[in-house]
Amino acid sequence: MSARKETERKRHVKKGLVMVNTGDGKGKTTAALGVMTRAWGRKMRVGVIQFLKHENANFGEIRAARRMEIDWIGTGDGWTWTSKDIDETQARALRGWEVAQERIVSGNYDLFILDEFTYLMAFGWLDATEVVAWLREHKPEMLHVIITGRDAPDELVDFADMVTEMREIKHPFSDQDIVAQPGVDF
Amino acid sequence: MSARKETERKRHVKKGLVMVNTGDGKGKTTAALGVMTRAWGRKMRVGVIQFLKHENANFGEIRAARRMEIDWIGTGDGWTWTSKDIDETQARALRGWEVAQERIVSGNYDLFILDEFTYLMAFGWLDATEVVAWLREHKPEMLHVIITGRDAPDELVDFADMVTEMREIKHPFSDQDIVAQPGVDF
Repeated sequence: MSARKETERKRHVKKGLVMVNTGDGKGKTTAALGVMTRAWGRKMRVGVIQFLKHENANFGEIRAARRMEIDWIGTGDGWTWTSKDIDETQARALRGWEVAQERIVSGNYDLFILDEFTYLMAFGWLDATEVVAWLREHKPEMLHVIITGRDAPDELVDFADMVTEMREIKHPFSDQDIVAQPGVDF
Repeated sequence: MSARKETERKRHVKKGLVMVNTGDGKGKTTAALGVMTRAWGRKMRVGVIQFLKHENANFGEIRAARRMEIDWIGTGDGWTWTSKDIDETQARALRGWEVAQERIVSGNYDLFILDEFTYLMAFGWLDATEVVAWLREHKPEMLHVIITGRDAPDELVDFADMVTEMREIKHPFSDQDIVAQPGVDF
């Protein structure tokens, strides 16, 4: 193949992307929900696993996923920093990763979202190198994966196709004493 | 009212927020779509006006909005930087702002999204000070507004309750010659 044809071919590669939304700002989970909606609009098969957030919570996104008939898996037992039993939180999160692995290899999805997954690596519960090695070996070629959360480890950033950092320029809760708003923030 | 009660009261303020997603990275429109989905999950009344993008386009988000029965208004005649007739583009965009103003004051929405609206100010088609003055006077108190686009003007950033900058850390189209993917990027 000529160099030009090779370039031409490369420009048209379609493959399942690994996308990471990280940083301290708003919009990491929210942007993942936007991709979820876009994919659903195209009748793609979408799954979401939400680490660390409470599995019985009734967030706007969970209500939406129910209305959209999207697979939504809650594994957390509430926010880690309010957890009374860190071992239980950790065990549930790690079980969540097992569930995610089963779903990822199943071939049943076009898009799979691992919401707040970076924390499992940032907290040292999972080894980022092993997670990346697993994804490299097992993620179906055409499956898109989105991983969200602060402090994305370097190994994951290196592996990902797309990494966006959400930076907080201005935030109403810290700056103005305005409470989080249903439908907007959760 | 005592200082403490005043603080207490302020902490529980609920009001319609003005949110801006800006920056050169991915996820500005996408995060707005995520809020749209969240709000829709809570059965809030949502409207979207998309400036500059083609009104006949069939993006994943437009298909989704149709499936969700969300008001979706396209005003653009295609991406400005591919436009053959810049005056027509500008006229349509400015007409879009008039439509947006009618919808904003209508009281028919809990969330209204002005997608790619910053460009109208960045290109000098609208005066940012006038836009902010109009919003300050006319936006219903409880209405949430999201404005997306690069190069958000300083006046808008000062006025907004929440501003997030999406920064591109890594992008597959520039770095790897991978094409934009339906359902993920559009």
